Amino acid sequence: MKNYTVLSRVRDFRDLKELSEEDTQTLISEIRDYIIDVTSKNGGHIGPSLGVVELTVALLKVFNPEVDRIVWDIGHQAYSWKILTGRKEQFRTLRQYKGISGFLKRKESPYDHFGAGHSSTSISAALGMRKAKDLSGKEGWTVAVIGDGAMTAGQAFEGLNHAGWLDPDRFIVILNDNQISISPNVGALYTYFNRIITNEVFQKSRQKLKDIIKTVFGESGAKIARKLEEYIKGLFAPGVIFEELGFTYVGTIDGHNLAELEKTLENVKKMRGPIIVHVLTQKGKGYVPAEENPTPFHGISPFDKITGVPIKKVGAPPSWSKVFGRALVELAERDSRIVAITPAMKEGSGLTEFAEKFPDRFFDVGIAEQHAATFAAGLAAEGMKPVLSYYSTFLQRGYDQVIHDIALQGLPVVIAIDRAGLVGEDGPTHHGVYDISFLRAVPDIVISAPKDRQELRNLLYTALNSDKVFAIRYPRGSAVGEETGGFEEITIGSWEVVDEGKELAILAVGKYVSRALEVKKILKKKGLNPTVVNARFIRPFDEELLKELLSGHHYVITMEDGALNGGFGSAVAEYIMDSRLSNELLRFGIPDRFIQHGKINQLEEELGLLPQHISEKIRAFVSKPDYKAAG
Amino acid sequence: MKNYTVLSRVRDFRDLKELSEEDTQTLISEIRDYIIDVTSKNGGHIGPSLGVVELTVALLKVFNPEVDRIVWDIGHQAYSWKILTGRKEQFRTLRQYKGISGFLKRKESPYDHFGAGHSSTSISAALGMRKAKDLSGKEGWTVAVIGDGAMTAGQAFEGLNHAGWLDPDRFIVILNDNQISISPNVGALYTYFNRIITNEVFQKSRQKLKDIIKTVFGESGAKIARKLEEYIKGLFAPGVIFEELGFTYVGTIDGHNLAELEKTLENVKKMRGPIIVHVLTQKGKGYVPAEENPTPFHGISPFDKITGVPIKKVGAPPSWSKVFGRALVELAERDSRIVAITPAMKEGSGLTEFAEKFPDRFFDVGIAEQHAATFAAGLAAEGMKPVLSYYSTFLQRGYDQVIHDIALQGLPVVIAIDRAGLVGEDGPTHHGVYDISFLRAVPDIVISAPKDRQELRNLLYTALNSDKVFAIRYPRGSAVGEETGGFEEITIGSWEVVDEGKELAILAVGKYVSRALEVKKILKKKGLNPTVVNARFIRPFDEELLKELLSGHHYVITMEDGALNGGFGSAVAEYIMDSRLSNELLRFGIPDRFIQHGKINQLEEELGLLPQHISEKIRAFVSKPDYKAAG
Repeated sequence: MKNYTVLSRVRDFRDLKELSEEDTQTLISEIRDYIIDVTSKNGGHIGPSLGVVELTVALLKVFNPEVDRIVWDIGHQAYSWKILTGRKEQFRTLRQYKGISGFLKRKESPYDHFGAGHSSTSISAALGMRKAKDLSGKEGWTVAVIGDGAMTAGQAFEGLNHAGWLDPDRFIVILNDNQISISPNVGALYTYFNRIITNEVFQKSRQKLKDIIKTVFGESGAKIARKLEEYIKGLFAPGVIFEELGFTYVGTIDGHNLAELEKTLENVKKMRGPIIVHVLTQKGKGYVPAEENPTPFHGISPFDKITGVPIKKVGAPPSWSKVFGRALVELAERDSRIVAITPAMKEGSGLTEFAEKFPDRFFDVGIAEQHAATFAAGLAAEGMKPVLSYYSTFLQRGYDQVIHDIALQGLPVVIAIDRAGLVGEDGPTHHGVYDISFLRAVPDIVISAPKDRQELRNLLYTALNSDKVFAIRYPRGSAVGEETGGFEEITIGSWEVVDEGKELAILAVGKYVSRALEVKKILKKKGLNPTVVNARFIRPFDEELLKELLSGHHYVITMEDGALNGGFGSAVAEYIMDSRLSNELLRFGIPDRFIQHGKINQLEEELGLLPQHISEKIRAFVSKPDYKAAG
Repeated sequence: MKNYTVLSRVRDFRDLKELSEEDTQTLISEIRDYIIDVTSKNGGHIGPSLGVVELTVALLKVFNPEVDRIVWDIGHQAYSWKILTGRKEQFRTLRQYKGISGFLKRKESPYDHFGAGHSSTSISAALGMRKAKDLSGKEGWTVAVIGDGAMTAGQAFEGLNHAGWLDPDRFIVILNDNQISISPNVGALYTYFNRIITNEVFQKSRQKLKDIIKTVFGESGAKIARKLEEYIKGLFAPGVIFEELGFTYVGTIDGHNLAELEKTLENVKKMRGPIIVHVLTQKGKGYVPAEENPTPFHGISPFDKITGVPIKKVGAPPSWSKVFGRALVELAERDSRIVAITPAMKEGSGLTEFAEKFPDRFFDVGIAEQHAATFAAGLAAEGMKPVLSYYSTFLQRGYDQVIHDIALQGLPVVIAIDRAGLVGEDGPTHHGVYDISFLRAVPDIVISAPKDRQELRNLLYTALNSDKVFAIRYPRGSAVGEETGGFEEITIGSWEVVDEGKELAILAVGKYVSRALEVKKILKKKGLNPTVVNARFIRPFDEELLKELLSGHHYVITMEDGALNGGFGSAVAEYIMDSRLSNELLRFGIPDRFIQHGKINQLEEELGLLPQHISEKIRAFVSKPDYKAAG
């Protein structure tokens, strides 16, 4: 802290009110430097957090976090909140194993009033807290701070709609509008916000006017006049959508002008009913590389502080996302029916090239996971071949739509599930470990996972030719293997014996296929020679091969990057028991507890999922120390 | 058909254009009579369908269902659509086993362009179809018909937001506004629609004006003036929310005036860009009992056509919902921290009495399943004891929020899962068979199911005292057992031996406990004497009892009203295999395919889940015909 003249002597938010204006400005600047310094080493969501330093200071001066409740949407905006609410020193451990979380987390601090790693929950949560305070007669305000990107999600609208109806006092929604979410924003709401900001109302209304006259030409003059009147009135009133939903709209406010922020918030505290304060901020504020190029700085891996260039391992293989995106482009070149849908994850899902090459066939729907799935179903219903790309953790938001709109109707949608399995530093809100279990419960969905780069290509090709609901899951990070080029169809439900052995069969899913081979190497030295199987289809099973394996191998080992409860190993257990076989089964996967954040290999070490642990457990297993006689 | 002079000679929509105006009016009236006649016998969603007969006729005259695409939200509005698109005779089999579905269903008819039993998907689906048509150069319009109730769901907003952004031509959203969804509507959007309709703008703005002056008293005059100006402008413009999202708003239109509907739709076809047509209809139109009392006629069981009174079995025991609602009222009387949340299912979930007795502690959030869960989490975070009530099938929409906002934060929310298991005539969109599997994948959620009425009371009591995330699932229909009164705490994770036997242990969940006892009766006659266990906790297990059972009973039978994949039986399979025991397991539950509609006992007969089938399978199982030697 010694380089920070003011930050070093500020304990926490309690000292803010005593600071001079000049010192406060220095503090703000030092907080930015500190955030840049730590994220350059640890990686993190630097862009969102740099944008809200003044807002955080203003909130902590105007409100009292002991009594009032501040709910930061997603929580990754809240690095300066962490620094100013007692975690100044710990902030250096941001996102590190056993360190502090990159999001807000109730278990980490009493000032983290509500945790979140997924977006658009803050209005709902703050409203619940508001009503609880009202019902129990507790003091204090509740405030949700939500980004403009997060506002496109249905849940935010559900929250606004309910809040407007309940009409609570002491309830504020701060719309933190940086005109960009992760990628540049999409959606009509975005253009709406933009229109409020740029005040191009005359321009817009004049254009719209011309369109209307052209369209309704032939209609009675009175009707045209009425229509125009409506438009013009609507367009004059900033914030009218919020006003119509029962909020009082206050805006726009410069989010980097501390005095204006404080004054506005103080004024708002005199008002009644739900209030929305529209604050304009700049993502990455105060760090030139992030200001100039906000998208990569939304969430970033460690980078060079001077240049802003991420520190990449030289010669690292491409990510699974990249392999997926590249393959999709190749396939889309051959088949014009292929379209891609992403809920605001274009870059992360490897779809940048696709979007550039096929802008008409690329749909970034914004943060709108429910809509994404049904929209894809609609595209499929009319003969297109939609590839619906989700991170596993966000697929949870489209679950009902995958069941109801896609699977039940048997509409051929390819669901590309990125970031499946443990994701590392983003931690428990983001680990994609439930998808196998929740998809396996639902009929008629093919569930697959590639062992390497070429197999991802082949599965995508197979999926697009299959006329089935077809999920392909693959993890975060660098892919393994090589792309040999071309595409080969894989028989749906077929497994592959990767390395034949005896007595012991390892059925491995996805990234665990290569790990199983490592395990085999270790085991061979100990006199064991397992058969390693690439269980690339989680459903349907390769029943023929499985039967054969079960009859030739007494011991069966399953390995998957997903929950043990109801997962692939569970399916194998079901199969063995349903078939009344006496094989013995050892399952590796994610146990029945939430896994915290840290590097993936640290987490896997903790869970005993590294090759050395697995080998040891298998050895113990086959030496039968636990075998019990049954009743 | 002989009583229907016009309907009898109209084949389908192709004949509509040839009908005289008078005959068309007769047809409309006959379609209503026919719907009333069939639903009085079969039950069904009479209210929504009676409201849109004119709209259906208008759509079928103005659009061509061979080329254009009409997506009816939820599909239960579409009985007249079914009648006029080739299913006139089959309509008598509505909702019956092997008969036609109560919802739209792509596999049933080429004119059911998109199926739905859940609400608020139509805009997304129609937009997908729109883009598919545009990309493939196909002709035709796409139209979504969505109720005002369904508009409160976030997904509808996501769809509007995306549609406004894409700005497609030949895309219409018809807002079928009857000012009621299932129960009377809630939400700010509802008051907004109401304001458009009643034109109370002056009244409202004057009131708001007074409030503002009061609130911001002391603020500069200029600011007040500006604020007022905004309000007044906003309030003058009907449909401004839609306009701001990029739609052209047309409304309001009398939905029972066929000529006006036709003319409007014809005019709209001359316009460009996305259009929203605001149509006012009356739920239950043309049937006095339903007009006067719309809520019970939303979806109804068979009723007396003259009086409108449902035909109830005399002396039928109360439903599970009712037992739940009654118990919750009793508990809420003792503890003011108890609050109830429902996404638009007040009556269905048995919460009417609660809502009357504790209006401040009752939250009908509208169709907003995502918000409901996070809102409950917010309430819990501030010390309330929220009971979040869902139908199992709708809980799918709140899945991510249950994971991310409730379970991960360990916030003590009681999740009351109604309609768990097969639901009967509503069919595959509504069967609640996935909840065990998808909840079991997620850590830290207690999952329970009562065997009878008193146990539901006791579980609810236990849940509210537990400080845990606690799910209680119970089925549709009449509850079994008696309420002995009072409440007793049940040790979390404890099972109960209901009837001791030997060799064979039946582990039954929820309603299958009483069935297991019936099975036992049958088996006893055949010389088998199973131990029957009430496995009231699906997680955590009663591990101690289970161990004991497994050591004393070689054969284990599981029974559950849920998916076999990943369900309770799967958990038992996991346990047996993980413990390396040699017990044999036979699992009863819902197989890995979608189950169609019909009476629950018809479906259970088809699935071999009635006592006789189960007994036979158990007998075959213990006689070991299938036992195979393992490798």
